[in-house]
Amino acid sequence: MSISTVLQAYRILEDERVIEARPQSGYFVRPKMWTPPALPEMSQPAKRPTEVNICDLSMRVMEATRDPALVKLGAALPSPELLPSVALNRAMAAAGRRHPDAGNTYEIAPGNLALRTQIARRALDSGISLSADDIITTCGGTEAIQLCLRAVAGPGDTIAIESPTYFGILQCIEALGMKVLEIPTHPVDGVSLEALTFALDSHRVKACLFVLNFNNPLGSCMPDANKERLVRMLAERGIPLIEDDIYGDICFTPERPKTAKSFDRDGGVLLCDSFSKTLAPGYRVGWTVPGRFKKQILHLKMVSTLANATLPEMAIADFLATGGYDHHLRKLRRVYADKSAWMTRIICEHFPEGTKVTQPSGGQVLWVELPGHINSLELFERALVEKISIAPGPIFSAKQKFQNFIRLNCGNPQSEIIENALKRLGRIIKGM
Amino acid sequence: MSISTVLQAYRILEDERVIEARPQSGYFVRPKMWTPPALPEMSQPAKRPTEVNICDLSMRVMEATRDPALVKLGAALPSPELLPSVALNRAMAAAGRRHPDAGNTYEIAPGNLALRTQIARRALDSGISLSADDIITTCGGTEAIQLCLRAVAGPGDTIAIESPTYFGILQCIEALGMKVLEIPTHPVDGVSLEALTFALDSHRVKACLFVLNFNNPLGSCMPDANKERLVRMLAERGIPLIEDDIYGDICFTPERPKTAKSFDRDGGVLLCDSFSKTLAPGYRVGWTVPGRFKKQILHLKMVSTLANATLPEMAIADFLATGGYDHHLRKLRRVYADKSAWMTRIICEHFPEGTKVTQPSGGQVLWVELPGHINSLELFERALVEKISIAPGPIFSAKQKFQNFIRLNCGNPQSEIIENALKRLGRIIKGM
Repeated sequence: MSISTVLQAYRILEDERVIEARPQSGYFVRPKMWTPPALPEMSQPAKRPTEVNICDLSMRVMEATRDPALVKLGAALPSPELLPSVALNRAMAAAGRRHPDAGNTYEIAPGNLALRTQIARRALDSGISLSADDIITTCGGTEAIQLCLRAVAGPGDTIAIESPTYFGILQCIEALGMKVLEIPTHPVDGVSLEALTFALDSHRVKACLFVLNFNNPLGSCMPDANKERLVRMLAERGIPLIEDDIYGDICFTPERPKTAKSFDRDGGVLLCDSFSKTLAPGYRVGWTVPGRFKKQILHLKMVSTLANATLPEMAIADFLATGGYDHHLRKLRRVYADKSAWMTRIICEHFPEGTKVTQPSGGQVLWVELPGHINSLELFERALVEKISIAPGPIFSAKQKFQNFIRLNCGNPQSEIIENALKRLGRIIKGM
Repeated sequence: MSISTVLQAYRILEDERVIEARPQSGYFVRPKMWTPPALPEMSQPAKRPTEVNICDLSMRVMEATRDPALVKLGAALPSPELLPSVALNRAMAAAGRRHPDAGNTYEIAPGNLALRTQIARRALDSGISLSADDIITTCGGTEAIQLCLRAVAGPGDTIAIESPTYFGILQCIEALGMKVLEIPTHPVDGVSLEALTFALDSHRVKACLFVLNFNNPLGSCMPDANKERLVRMLAERGIPLIEDDIYGDICFTPERPKTAKSFDRDGGVLLCDSFSKTLAPGYRVGWTVPGRFKKQILHLKMVSTLANATLPEMAIADFLATGGYDHHLRKLRRVYADKSAWMTRIICEHFPEGTKVTQPSGGQVLWVELPGHINSLELFERALVEKISIAPGPIFSAKQKFQNFIRLNCGNPQSEIIENALKRLGRIIKGM
């Protein structure tokens, strides 16, 4: 081609903002403009208490995702290579040598003292001043939530929850024969306090169960001022708040957000947490700070599982005391923040127009709203065929709403595999 | 003294059977004649369903016995020195090295395959042919029982149980808001099938929960023929049987008794078991064989505690495969049999006349009936002052009956300490 043709082509491309001229260097392809995606809207759940009906569906989803060959975009699991497995297993072996009788006796509730002391020490970071006595250890966060629900409510009672919320919470409420009242929740600020006030005035709500810091799947984080209002509001009404803070430590900001528990004055907040997202899911070490429900929780823990495995508690206590947990957390936060931004970009490029994505400031998941005609359960099945697992939206609501939503896990650092999986997912969606 | 005086004294003592003449050896003190003590009678519980009300009392008893300085005759715990702690902790350390990621992933229900395979293999000893797929692991036997109860019954339903029975079972039923119907139970043969038939014909019983092999505290073992009748009888009525076999492996006979599960044809028996009495209470490894309730139990396990700690399951699987579990069991059985006979003798010597004691053929406890005027709760408090813990009778029944009974643990091999504690206990009782 002649030089003038090339120059004219360059000029056209420059007008179209595809390339740019750099002084003394020539023409370059412009970096693609990055417009952050639109956020999903505030959720609009049913305005009355409903029974939960997701057990069969969520079991099917979990069952279908056990295949180790899958690219696991569905489970909200930390990727094994991000966790200090070797150090923890070594700490457990050392604890077994130092305390040969540790496995031989029941470490009956409230659980290992060294561990509870470490948890109390760290609670200052989230604004709470605790003593080891305030804490009861549990078999993971799941047991903490289950025990707290049983302590504050019974079959037929209504629990106010976020919409959407973690399917494990819904399953637990369903199994206990309780009902839910789903509260509109914004993808940035979390539960709408206005909607909650209205709901509490209109219905007999026995307790609230919220994931205030980096709700799963929404990624929302309630501002601390709202948390304070929330706690005051519930205390005035005598309604307990079960606060699941399992993602609180995985913030993308230098300082972690406070817990609602830090504003608790009358023991009405039951904080639940675990090390499953930050250290070792397979150690099953969770805990609760049950406030004024301590006696009930102690009793329920004893009749439900009696005690936790002793050596895993000792190993985590040791790691917290000496293993550089803060250093480890900083790494985890950086990886999750990077992955979440990076996956968002790929989604924006490869998913159809109209896709909306949350921009969480912590946690490890993205909540993706697909065009209205996409059925995410069908997408789930089609993706499985291509060896990709996703979490379909309907398992995150009592009545299987969020038909065109999916949740994606950002905890997997294997970039190329993830990138290809997201591209394939985009193709499947576009073909639907 | 003159020889004739001594000889005459010898003759008198011989007449009184205090000494005996041995040919070519002289006179010897005769071993004290051993008359086995009388057995407690068959229990006579209330004939209608009742609510359980032992939570506060049993919590107080457990709370009061945490003092490590106590001589622990109360807890039914294997003594740490009888358990293969070092080998198990070593197996766990090795599992952590071989599978560094084991603690990093959820071993979601049904639980570790190697462990379930070993449990299935061993089940042949109790007459059951199982595959690993029939088994779901749990956080100790306590969780197994709790999940099984929740799978077969709901709040307000009536569960038929033995009288007396383990307070953990009563606490669990109470916490789930269920009622009990206590069935007369004999200290040798266990539940009276005649009384049970009558009870089932008279009341709406939702399920039975029995400890058929070496009931705690009664030590009774239902003959296998009765177990077969029991299973048939319940199957005809469509009533599930939760069978707690936690002591089945600790028999004082060469062959362990069968389980009711071994006679189960329609999946109506939910077997519960754990390694807490034979290997490692602090590892929290139990399991259930839930028969036709498998789907419900899987779901309940997931919503209650999600998964068990992975490495303790691997360690026990490894020990079962290679660690000489049978050899270990033989030792345990011998110690418990010896201790139980030995303690019975001391009780007969030092407790007041009219004391009755069970003669269990397995397990690790004695159930002692004291004279009618003894209040065992008062005895419990007085013994605590002397640094001895016992389990008072009332915690073993829904309405705090068995006021003049106590349960004593035979799992403690420290003879001198135990002997002195029993003597002191006898003195306290005689003084009441």
